[in-house]
Amino acid sequence: MKPFMNEDFLLKTETAKKLYEMGKDLPIIDYHCHINPQEIYENRKFNDITEVWLGGDHYKWRLIRSNGVPEEEITGSADNRTKFQRFAEALPKAIGNPMYHWTHLELKRYFGYDGVLNGDTAEEVWNLCNEKLKSDDMTVRGLIERSNVAFIGTTDDPADSLEWHKLLKEDESFKTVVAPSFRPDKAVNIEKDGFKEYIGKLSDVVGEKIDSVKTLKRIMHDRLDLFEEMGCKAADHGLDYVVYAPADEKEVEKIFKKALKGNAVTSAEMEIYKTNLLIFFAEEYHKRGWAMQIHYGTMRNINAPIFRKMGPDVGFDVISNRCCCDAIAGLLNAFVENEACPKIILYSLNPADNQLLDTIIGAFQGSEVAGKIQHGSAWWFNDTKTGMQEQMTSLANLSILGNFVGMLTDSRSFLSYTRHEYFRRILCNLLGDWVENGEYPYDEKALGEIVQGICYYNAKRYFGL
Amino acid sequence: MKPFMNEDFLLKTETAKKLYEMGKDLPIIDYHCHINPQEIYENRKFNDITEVWLGGDHYKWRLIRSNGVPEEEITGSADNRTKFQRFAEALPKAIGNPMYHWTHLELKRYFGYDGVLNGDTAEEVWNLCNEKLKSDDMTVRGLIERSNVAFIGTTDDPADSLEWHKLLKEDESFKTVVAPSFRPDKAVNIEKDGFKEYIGKLSDVVGEKIDSVKTLKRIMHDRLDLFEEMGCKAADHGLDYVVYAPADEKEVEKIFKKALKGNAVTSAEMEIYKTNLLIFFAEEYHKRGWAMQIHYGTMRNINAPIFRKMGPDVGFDVISNRCCCDAIAGLLNAFVENEACPKIILYSLNPADNQLLDTIIGAFQGSEVAGKIQHGSAWWFNDTKTGMQEQMTSLANLSILGNFVGMLTDSRSFLSYTRHEYFRRILCNLLGDWVENGEYPYDEKALGEIVQGICYYNAKRYFGL
Amino acid sequence: MKPFMNEDFLLKTETAKKLYEMGKDLPIIDYHCHINPQEIYENRKFNDITEVWLGGDHYKWRLIRSNGVPEEEITGSADNRTKFQRFAEALPKAIGNPMYHWTHLELKRYFGYDGVLNGDTAEEVWNLCNEKLKSDDMTVRGLIERSNVAFIGTTDDPADSLEWHKLLKEDESFKTVVAPSFRPDKAVNIEKDGFKEYIGKLSDVVGEKIDSVKTLKRIMHDRLDLFEEMGCKAADHGLDYVVYAPADEKEVEKIFKKALKGNAVTSAEMEIYKTNLLIFFAEEYHKRGWAMQIHYGTMRNINAPIFRKMGPDVGFDVISNRCCCDAIAGLLNAFVENEACPKIILYSLNPADNQLLDTIIGAFQGSEVAGKIQHGSAWWFNDTKTGMQEQMTSLANLSILGNFVGMLTDSRSFLSYTRHEYFRRILCNLLGDWVENGEYPYDEKALGEIVQGICYYNAKRYFGL
Repeated sequence: MKPFMNEDFLLKTETAKKLYEMGKDLPIIDYHCHINPQEIYENRKFNDITEVWLGGDHYKWRLIRSNGVPEEEITGSADNRTKFQRFAEALPKAIGNPMYHWTHLELKRYFGYDGVLNGDTAEEVWNLCNEKLKSDDMTVRGLIERSNVAFIGTTDDPADSLEWHKLLKEDESFKTVVAPSFRPDKAVNIEKDGFKEYIGKLSDVVGEKIDSVKTLKRIMHDRLDLFEEMGCKAADHGLDYVVYAPADEKEVEKIFKKALKGNAVTSAEMEIYKTNLLIFFAEEYHKRGWAMQIHYGTMRNINAPIFRKMGPDVGFDVISNRCCCDAIAGLLNAFVENEACPKIILYSLNPADNQLLDTIIGAFQGSEVAGKIQHGSAWWFNDTKTGMQEQMTSLANLSILGNFVGMLTDSRSFLSYTRHEYFRRILCNLLGDWVENGEYPYDEKALGEIVQGICYYNAKRYFGL
Repeated sequence: MKPFMNEDFLLKTETAKKLYEMGKDLPIIDYHCHINPQEIYENRKFNDITEVWLGGDHYKWRLIRSNGVPEEEITGSADNRTKFQRFAEALPKAIGNPMYHWTHLELKRYFGYDGVLNGDTAEEVWNLCNEKLKSDDMTVRGLIERSNVAFIGTTDDPADSLEWHKLLKEDESFKTVVAPSFRPDKAVNIEKDGFKEYIGKLSDVVGEKIDSVKTLKRIMHDRLDLFEEMGCKAADHGLDYVVYAPADEKEVEKIFKKALKGNAVTSAEMEIYKTNLLIFFAEEYHKRGWAMQIHYGTMRNINAPIFRKMGPDVGFDVISNRCCCDAIAGLLNAFVENEACPKIILYSLNPADNQLLDTIIGAFQGSEVAGKIQHGSAWWFNDTKTGMQEQMTSLANLSILGNFVGMLTDSRSFLSYTRHEYFRRILCNLLGDWVENGEYPYDEKALGEIVQGICYYNAKRYFGL
Repeated sequence: MKPFMNEDFLLKTETAKKLYEMGKDLPIIDYHCHINPQEIYENRKFNDITEVWLGGDHYKWRLIRSNGVPEEEITGSADNRTKFQRFAEALPKAIGNPMYHWTHLELKRYFGYDGVLNGDTAEEVWNLCNEKLKSDDMTVRGLIERSNVAFIGTTDDPADSLEWHKLLKEDESFKTVVAPSFRPDKAVNIEKDGFKEYIGKLSDVVGEKIDSVKTLKRIMHDRLDLFEEMGCKAADHGLDYVVYAPADEKEVEKIFKKALKGNAVTSAEMEIYKTNLLIFFAEEYHKRGWAMQIHYGTMRNINAPIFRKMGPDVGFDVISNRCCCDAIAGLLNAFVENEACPKIILYSLNPADNQLLDTIIGAFQGSEVAGKIQHGSAWWFNDTKTGMQEQMTSLANLSILGNFVGMLTDSRSFLSYTRHEYFRRILCNLLGDWVENGEYPYDEKALGEIVQGICYYNAKRYFGL
């Protein structure tokens, strides 16, 4: 029996251990996450471990809810110690859950705690962590620096002023590059509540009334330029499902005006509008050499009473397995027909799409960069040991694993960089198995290039850092 | 090489063996099955092994058919010895099939036969089993008692008098609790042949004409009360796919009346009617503290000539992968909107739905009981080693495995309790792998709680036994 | 660590090695491939390894494209040495890809090269292979004979004269049986460009104007007879998705006439026409004792600019996960209703369909032959180690693995017979695992029958060779 999460955690073979040695100390390029640049600039400090862990982490909230704990003690008015207790009590039952590993990796790496968190040890861990959080290397910047993070790509709205990014750019004392990513979901999701208000807000920001798609695109063009100035390398689109419904500009304008009047658009109209905007954005990204990330396969806020009470992003989004393969193919084809297909990273929340995506990417590659069209790392609910193994195995089967741009945290937390460690261990173990099994020669140079490429160099090259 | 199905069957590691020791002797709660309460009450005896094994087991029939055997020698007029021979001849080719393990577990545990069944040994096994079947502990009650079954949840129609359940309740000589489960499929499946006739039959049973949905619901209310008196803890719904099509009561009444006149309803009408009934039933179950099981993802009786000849449930139902994720989310949301969401157990026949379900359940948990909304154990065609591993791995990844209510046989046979053994071995092996691999600490208390919870205590608590 | 691809490649256990010994020397029945009978008859020689490997292999082209290589150096006007270099450079990054194994198996078995192909060794391999290609046993016939191929089923259009098959049949110097397979896709795919022209071409071939479905069917009847004369044992249908939309003959005639006038048919019309033709063909195959192969689950030529430039079958087809389970069930039911259900082999390009297909086949078995309805070997993008393991595990779980007709290359290349070796190793390793794990007894006779059946005898029996 291997000891619990020792230095060889997840590395079953000698080859796996050797490969991990090759990759483990490389810097982290966290090209897609949801952390707040203001908190980096201001170098936020944390008062207690509940603030760090349970302040905004809907993964953990879901886990605690599944243990029958009332909302009061999860996101409600209960005190932080109680909330921590409830989490600690749920954790031991979550055998096999990545949260179990993430939590203990974070306790080890950031707090030096090698024990096991449960209801009995909660008090000890609470005290230890809160004590450690007082130290200077446990601020946001301290955490980022000790995690060896070279690049952070945040997620930002086109209406954002990017003021914190500007300040961070100017601050030479902080070595990690922090760049915005362009995520115009609110301007694309015409069917969602708040669309009209968002367009109004954007109008206010730019000081010009946006009353046509044409104007919207011109304004977006300027915002894209602003993002580019701030070092943006990637955009991101969150779609419940991928759409492809081409129509002429007139039709699109009509739909936009309908929505601006506050009228609900039909599904067909929504698809037409989105298709038009996505092709426009793809062209803009292509011009700028950005990567276009597309995240799809979700049903969001499916518990309506809770949504009314708590709003979005609190743990009530789920996987959708609605089929949209024809639309994915159609949309990417529209990009190549338009002679403006950017680098693209596709992520589906439905793990049954792995093989589908790994074949689709093969039909739109280009010679600008190896692996121009990518199947992104196992996303969200799939960001687990098995999910990552399956995404990488499928990618290896159907494409070139060695060109994969690898891991990202997609996280709201400054402690999540250990997920890169988790990923690197799983990657090296998978490759190690193949080598040990005689399926690939033990060639240190070739293997080193693969491991170090996936851990660091591929993303560096791909995003042009 | 491990000997064939020895005492460490499926237990690869020392930890797995230790965990299995913790769970193996706990009583069985078989909360969902299709055995006949009359046969329990009357303590049926069996004349020969074909009667036990091949009398009603469509799993085995399918297997024999796949071996090119004519129906005559499967379900037809061939003699029982011949039918047994055909099964024995097919079995050795069924390497990797759970039937191979179920069969040999049953031979070991109930008949003391440690050999291998095939065409050559069939005669020996036939004689041995038939001899053993004469003994008193091989009656229905004998089999249940020696299998250490604490609770049996049968599957019963609302029109059923539950007379055998009543008699069993009164019979103090039999320790196993036998309770009905409420399965109103015939009243819900308005699109199926026989709907009108069923409503007529129910009218006769209750002595009141059912000519409106309103009346139907009132009648159902009474039947639910009867089931509750008989100790019912759970309901069950079998749906080809989950529906969610809300409409007002008037519309629902119109559709009901149309069907009662013998007119075929459209798919849209079927969905409206079912949605309305499902929300009604959920509310009733919620009031009573029952669990609502939903089984979906089927195409039934797809071979029409055979259906006309043999009727339903003879081995011609298959997996459907029709997408209904929006309806599942919509229906469960309707339950919470209605402030009457019962405990729910979701089962899909399509194994690609595992992750979908494991995320959906997380959006509707409650504080009544830990794991209020469950993803049921790998169902029917997925009730295999790999199917169970995948269901539990997905559940562990995305929820709290430690709250899982575990195994049920879903069986028509009194010898199927060994499937609980099969499940417990697979569970313990899976957990053992994680511990041996350093992914969870070797903590006997925590592991014992998980194993014993999933084997017994979770279901006991969940169903309130 | 096992040496790279040594004699025990993919065989992890002693039992696996013993089982492989039982199967490895059996002849190959390659019942479905795309090689050119003319090249067999004329005994084509190859000038260089690029001609053999990169002349028409869209698997390899996709791989090289994924490495960012311009089309010029893949399928374009670059010289053959450069093209080979690009492939050799991409290969080392393709860890985990079956191409890595196929390539090295072919280098070992046909060229006696035991090294590793990469950018550095490309020159050495180029020289070695081109030298070897001059020898007489490296012609098409030489390769087939040294690969121990007993039967080859090519893929042929109904309009084909089968002249090369006729010549091969008459040539007693060549022992391998080469038979055509009937693939009437161009007559079935009424929605595709070129349908009208194809019907015109077929009219010319048979010397009779085809202006009705009735005439088309009569002509097809004659073509089927011609194929039968040439030893045809199987037909094949490639469908993007399976259809089932029954309608009367008049309606079908109207749709056919519409298409013949050059008008586009609607999706509904396309489905009606195809359904009618498929039922007709199934009946004809049934009469002749042929197997009907159905390949579905594709989106083809999804990159339109490339399709316009390069045409079909150049690496731009992908997996579709569009759901058509109801149509599969409906179509097979139509065959049994018609009392003319042939032997059928179903292949889906979507691996998530494995379980679906393994249950559907169980509903239409017959007593003509064991395993009358088959789930075909992991197809195309799934023709990988994991894809084959999953297809066989699912088949074993849900049907009788021992009746499986096993591997086919589906290849355009004369070096692909090593894929049968690859398959046999994976099969034996899978079975070996089960035996070593105590899940099946170590019974040499029973295991030998399973292994040798799947490697050779089942296909021999199934196709009546």
